[in-house]
Amino acid sequence: MAHDLGKGWLGNFFEDFELGKEQVCAPPRVIGAPETALHIGTTNDRQARFCGGEGRMHPLVVFHTVIGQTVRNISLNSPANLGYSKMIWHAPVFAGDEITTTIKIVGLKENSNGKTGNCFVETTGRNQSGEIVLQYTRWVMVRKRDHDTATPYLENPVTPSLASQVEVAELPAWSGDLSRSEKTGGAYFFEDYEPGERIFHHDGMTVNHTDHMQYTRLWQNSAKVHFDEILTDGKPLVYGGFPFSIAYAQSLNGLENRSGMVAMNSGAHANPCYSGTTIYSFTEVLEAHDLVDQPYGALRLRLVGVKDLNPADHKDFDIGEDNGKGRIKYDPRVLLCMDIWELMPKRAS
Amino acid sequence: MAHDLGKGWLGNFFEDFELGKEQVCAPPRVIGAPETALHIGTTNDRQARFCGGEGRMHPLVVFHTVIGQTVRNISLNSPANLGYSKMIWHAPVFAGDEITTTIKIVGLKENSNGKTGNCFVETTGRNQSGEIVLQYTRWVMVRKRDHDTATPYLENPVTPSLASQVEVAELPAWSGDLSRSEKTGGAYFFEDYEPGERIFHHDGMTVNHTDHMQYTRLWQNSAKVHFDEILTDGKPLVYGGFPFSIAYAQSLNGLENRSGMVAMNSGAHANPCYSGTTIYSFTEVLEAHDLVDQPYGALRLRLVGVKDLNPADHKDFDIGEDNGKGRIKYDPRVLLCMDIWELMPKRAS
Amino acid sequence: MAHDLGKGWLGNFFEDFELGKEQVCAPPRVIGAPETALHIGTTNDRQARFCGGEGRMHPLVVFHTVIGQTVRNISLNSPANLGYSKMIWHAPVFAGDEITTTIKIVGLKENSNGKTGNCFVETTGRNQSGEIVLQYTRWVMVRKRDHDTATPYLENPVTPSLASQVEVAELPAWSGDLSRSEKTGGAYFFEDYEPGERIFHHDGMTVNHTDHMQYTRLWQNSAKVHFDEILTDGKPLVYGGFPFSIAYAQSLNGLENRSGMVAMNSGAHANPCYSGTTIYSFTEVLEAHDLVDQPYGALRLRLVGVKDLNPADHKDFDIGEDNGKGRIKYDPRVLLCMDIWELMPKRAS
Repeated sequence: MAHDLGKGWLGNFFEDFELGKEQVCAPPRVIGAPETALHIGTTNDRQARFCGGEGRMHPLVVFHTVIGQTVRNISLNSPANLGYSKMIWHAPVFAGDEITTTIKIVGLKENSNGKTGNCFVETTGRNQSGEIVLQYTRWVMVRKRDHDTATPYLENPVTPSLASQVEVAELPAWSGDLSRSEKTGGAYFFEDYEPGERIFHHDGMTVNHTDHMQYTRLWQNSAKVHFDEILTDGKPLVYGGFPFSIAYAQSLNGLENRSGMVAMNSGAHANPCYSGTTIYSFTEVLEAHDLVDQPYGALRLRLVGVKDLNPADHKDFDIGEDNGKGRIKYDPRVLLCMDIWELMPKRAS
Repeated sequence: MAHDLGKGWLGNFFEDFELGKEQVCAPPRVIGAPETALHIGTTNDRQARFCGGEGRMHPLVVFHTVIGQTVRNISLNSPANLGYSKMIWHAPVFAGDEITTTIKIVGLKENSNGKTGNCFVETTGRNQSGEIVLQYTRWVMVRKRDHDTATPYLENPVTPSLASQVEVAELPAWSGDLSRSEKTGGAYFFEDYEPGERIFHHDGMTVNHTDHMQYTRLWQNSAKVHFDEILTDGKPLVYGGFPFSIAYAQSLNGLENRSGMVAMNSGAHANPCYSGTTIYSFTEVLEAHDLVDQPYGALRLRLVGVKDLNPADHKDFDIGEDNGKGRIKYDPRVLLCMDIWELMPKRAS
Repeated sequence: MAHDLGKGWLGNFFEDFELGKEQVCAPPRVIGAPETALHIGTTNDRQARFCGGEGRMHPLVVFHTVIGQTVRNISLNSPANLGYSKMIWHAPVFAGDEITTTIKIVGLKENSNGKTGNCFVETTGRNQSGEIVLQYTRWVMVRKRDHDTATPYLENPVTPSLASQVEVAELPAWSGDLSRSEKTGGAYFFEDYEPGERIFHHDGMTVNHTDHMQYTRLWQNSAKVHFDEILTDGKPLVYGGFPFSIAYAQSLNGLENRSGMVAMNSGAHANPCYSGTTIYSFTEVLEAHDLVDQPYGALRLRLVGVKDLNPADHKDFDIGEDNGKGRIKYDPRVLLCMDIWELMPKRAS
């Protein structure tokens, strides 16, 4: 019997996406203490809010769970994740919650090379009560099935209007107890942070094979390039969320009292990462907003992950230069550059 | 003081086994969400039934737990696992269940080389209520302590009569909610599968040191050859259950709505696996049985794990040829060949 | 903007420690089934008391949690852990307990080289009810910030008087059900152990990168030398607690009915360990105390971890010789030498 490729799913190609189409991603997933332990065991995360008795799940555990659920539909044939817009962690997630993710295609743009297109995906993660816990739009490059036939989205691309940042008024309120030094070890509070300031995090972490592959599989992310040495000529690509998690865990050092990310304005996986890379990071304070009537303020921060170079030894390290089109051409040592919002308690009066 | 080998257990040798002897294996083990998370983190398993709020444990997690419990008694001195017969997952296991395994020696046959014998072990895993959750007979080769003295089982081997397959009537009923596309992502149902059909699963997974060793230790499998580079001249042997789990997780692709293995007719760990191997797999549909009065049918499937070659690129890949004695001489690239039963829901009417 | 090192914590130096100062270590940590599963998956621990339905946490899981909590305060700038005194596991810990650790500086002694000092730290781990679960004093070498200026502790060192061992009367009582062969697989009881006896454990375990790094991160131990290949010239140092856990798990073989460590008299991380090392171990029975009126006795044991050499093949392996000052100069193959107390049930009458 001759065999065709049959029932095994090879993923959607650019031609398969339909504007406005909503889909439930499979499978739903319960997360809890084991995912927290593996997150800690992979990243060395030490944030008190996410390892205590309350069972509060780390915002990046929620992020990876949601993005992992979308891979089968969106990104099996994706050479690159291009950006994120208006990512908001709307509600806390606790151990035992079951996360279900839905996606809606809100933009399609074929690229001029005829080989790929960009797909804009509104992504919504909900808990078992249907409450939205995380929402964002991301855009990804997706390969075309047929390089010789243009789609309507070459001539008539549909590009959604995407907010360049989450407004302060849109940030969710602090959830749960405010951070205090006794539990966090942190000496600094909202009043201590100043725009323009750089915080160096000092902890380098070298990536090993199992480190990144296990973490990526944990989120049921099934993109082949992360796992198959033959397909990748011996260099499996590290999932972009991995150095993000490492750098974010490192960035607790100097920001011990933070809430944990409540929103992300934008984010770039600036350069690829492979096993053997040592990841360092620093944070720049971009904005500090006093929230009157609240016991905390909001900090807009740029988290920068750097490969094989400790920015604490190069304090004025330049992440890149403007490419003339309002975007940054990143230094090849920049792994990631994430523009995020944290809430930060004020000093107890 | 001169020291003899003393109290450290070196495992049973062929001479130590007694026909008809029943034994409880130590220790009992609770399994739950952490074992599920590590199973997912190792294999990238994405089957909806085994990662949701119900806490239903994966059939292979149960399998590894049971087989791991038997290693100390049976296979510390075993150069090879030879086969399985009539493996049935009789009842579902849920998070928090405590598994206890008992073994009974049902056959002994010394091999003509004088160095080893084959030991047939009826194996029964039970939950904390004493309910049988998994039962099978496996036979393993075990080294003799004394190569110069024959046992009675050289002249008079006792070989149990082992069923070559589990009958359809013996299969357990579907447990819990039927799979539906919204939760599984799967488009295919019982009616869509046809004997003779091959399903290619497309996902390659390269084995790293910690991947296989951690997974093997998780099941408290203490066979030294899996962990000790000095003993194995730098090449620890991967536990046969590891590529089985990887291949089975891959095989969800095209079989998304399956129940999870309910029985195994037979299984071969056809060739050894080491770190660095990339595992691929495909499935052949051997039989499809409509179960009248049931909303699902039964599929008999052959799961084949292949090393360092993607069968989707070699669609008619030949697993081996009959060796003239009714057994297959496997191609050296075949890692495993498992003859299993799945239940598969019928298309909702 | 020029950037100074700012808010990132670089750890305390010798000059920063204040005699008598008590501090709560951050963050508190809940431990439970996931930590047990990862402990098993890393070490192959098979002790029945710590993998069953009771949720009893392994003494080494408690140890690592407590010591991990102290790293940020004590040992980020520590080149060496020098010793432990009077470590007692006062009360059992169960899954879901939240551990908080406090430290008190009870001794300071500057070393004559001017570069380091020794810091004596009384360490107390408590559960969420405030009950002491683990207590000990350890002393660590810590780097001075300023090599040119002596502290008062050069001329006037303060050295606490430390007990060289935990007395039998101080040992906690057996907690929970006594071990019995059916659950443990162990044939030996208190009456079977004899001072002077060596027990060889037979299981070698080769250390892989992720094995030790994940285990170390799991306990939120943030000492950079364990994770950063650049900082360590390609050879991250394995956390001393890692070979201890491996050797202790191995040492169940021959001591299956033990309670799990209830106290440690002293302990040496005798030589450094790196990835690629194969760890073996043996135990020497130092003392056996019948506890009248109790169904168990107390065994004082020396657990020795050895690198790249199986002591079962060198039964009279010499761990070292007295250096003339009452301390042992260890053979370079000795990784660790721990002097511990176990309770061991008597043979059922």
